[in-house]
Amino acid sequence: MGARRQDTVGAARYLAVDVGGTSTRAVVVGADGSALGYGSAGSGNPTSSGSALAAEAIVAATAGALQRAGVAAGQVADTAIAIAGGDGTIGRQLHAELLEAGLPAGLTFEPDLLAAFHSGTTATAGYVLVAGTGAGAIRIRDDRIDGRCDGLGWLLGDAGSGFWIGHHGVLAAVAELDGRGPPTALTDLVLADLGVQGTTERTAQARATGLRGVVDAVYRLRPVELARLAPVVLHAAAAGDDVAGDIVARAAAELAATLAVVLVDDLDGPLVLSGSILSQPVIGDPVVESYRTQRPGGDVATVSDGLAGAAVLVLRRAGERVDDVVLARIHASLADLRADV
Amino acid sequence: MGARRQDTVGAARYLAVDVGGTSTRAVVVGADGSALGYGSAGSGNPTSSGSALAAEAIVAATAGALQRAGVAAGQVADTAIAIAGGDGTIGRQLHAELLEAGLPAGLTFEPDLLAAFHSGTTATAGYVLVAGTGAGAIRIRDDRIDGRCDGLGWLLGDAGSGFWIGHHGVLAAVAELDGRGPPTALTDLVLADLGVQGTTERTAQARATGLRGVVDAVYRLRPVELARLAPVVLHAAAAGDDVAGDIVARAAAELAATLAVVLVDDLDGPLVLSGSILSQPVIGDPVVESYRTQRPGGDVATVSDGLAGAAVLVLRRAGERVDDVVLARIHASLADLRADV
Repeated sequence: MGARRQDTVGAARYLAVDVGGTSTRAVVVGADGSALGYGSAGSGNPTSSGSALAAEAIVAATAGALQRAGVAAGQVADTAIAIAGGDGTIGRQLHAELLEAGLPAGLTFEPDLLAAFHSGTTATAGYVLVAGTGAGAIRIRDDRIDGRCDGLGWLLGDAGSGFWIGHHGVLAAVAELDGRGPPTALTDLVLADLGVQGTTERTAQARATGLRGVVDAVYRLRPVELARLAPVVLHAAAAGDDVAGDIVARAAAELAATLAVVLVDDLDGPLVLSGSILSQPVIGDPVVESYRTQRPGGDVATVSDGLAGAAVLVLRRAGERVDDVVLARIHASLADLRADV
Repeated sequence: MGARRQDTVGAARYLAVDVGGTSTRAVVVGADGSALGYGSAGSGNPTSSGSALAAEAIVAATAGALQRAGVAAGQVADTAIAIAGGDGTIGRQLHAELLEAGLPAGLTFEPDLLAAFHSGTTATAGYVLVAGTGAGAIRIRDDRIDGRCDGLGWLLGDAGSGFWIGHHGVLAAVAELDGRGPPTALTDLVLADLGVQGTTERTAQARATGLRGVVDAVYRLRPVELARLAPVVLHAAAAGDDVAGDIVARAAAELAATLAVVLVDDLDGPLVLSGSILSQPVIGDPVVESYRTQRPGGDVATVSDGLAGAAVLVLRRAGERVDDVVLARIHASLADLRADV
């Protein structure tokens, strides 16, 4: 790693940021794709968190990456921020806040789904399906978005996302406590995760007390934070709970349906799957299976997030060449830095 | 009305407040149930609006009622505030804020559903189903809550409520614009209500622009404000739109299911239906029909809200006699005052 950093001394430095609903990640890269410094922070999604929290997370992740790379903000040639909703009014407000907070000029917002696509391929056309805190799919042609489905946030969409799974897990627990749904292992798991005094009893009194505790706890959260319960649901499903298993199966079906909306006959792929939810085989496998029934020969790549792709985009927009070797270098050097954090 | 006020001069004055997700109502009553002054304000539900907004709405509605009755806060013998969640931590915070804001001491929170029940009957046992901004049902015995279902707020329940109907209306519009759902008259109606530039075209570009506008507009609202779109869905259903008709039918089925959870064999009724959603025959009629299949002889009363019932509760708790004549007097005198506002 020391040698790799030496190779890029004197060359241009680029900053790439990938903003998610649960965490925000930043990396400083050299022109050849070598990752020089990595930083992370909390949720930076302006739709779910508001632009002030988003700006704070982006600034914190960026400061960490620059500091670890030993690079000053003024030395950065270009910056790409992969973010949902960067093209809307919230994005314009966020852009102004970031420049005021001292982020390097030459700041470009990129669609988060386009960055996720480029984490998985150097192709300039294909499909990407993302499911982390949120969920959505796009079709890409000539390196631009040619069609999209969902990615509409927790209140209007994100079907099959981490929020969706966590929310449905809480709803299943609430339904049991409220006398409207079947018994499920999710109830005790959700009570425990929310810090509500649990009880193995199911008397009317105990159910009412548990329900009141869940209501109080949930309305103190920002709704999107229910995504943190997705692992609880996946765990219960793996342990054989039928209610949890049904939620997970429906999430996979929702994601496959979202992807199906953007598929067109004259574009075979590749397909990139991105995000913490799709990296779970219990979700990712049925989605890939559904895709292969429509695209038998289509390539599929799975990536963790859009950070490497954001680096690809900032390099390409600056005229640097990004081929498979460079993409592999971004991934390998980024993995080294993340392992160190 | 002048004569009626004369009759109660010198007697005790009581204050009753009914807090809803969309509006908050207050009335000053005499010991015989005569309504002396009425006031209203915006949403006062602490779960959906926070305790500060709730306190503000309650104080404003109360001030209006006292001023129009010509009664000072210090002259009020007892106050009942019918509110959801008054027994939780948010309720305790709200209680402190209200006393600090100068509301009369001797302030008691009553469950909003219990107040709604007493708007419709002087019985001390039976059932009430409420659907306004939120929705829930309770069973009452000995004038206390003996069982409940739903009433869990927009994120965890309120199935079939005004929020639920409005939210599903927006989801249907979004589904059409996003290529995931069938065409529906709701799309243009929702765009218009949200102030999004409408278009009769359904090109990919026009759909994407409309979708972005809906997303921007919806996330600027507090989620519970989607209840304001319920009339739009009811209107589209009445005009024959299949998608809207399906939402309305599902809302009625959800409400009937919520009521069914609290029904027990040894209690026949009466049933009180309360709230702006259940006062719509297209919702209320199928709910009553479902109830009558299980309670063929059960009495059903429909009321607009829980304000009269809050007055019943404050009078009863103070030892005043409330019979059918007094309840009728509350309703009649309250209707006079509301007509004047």
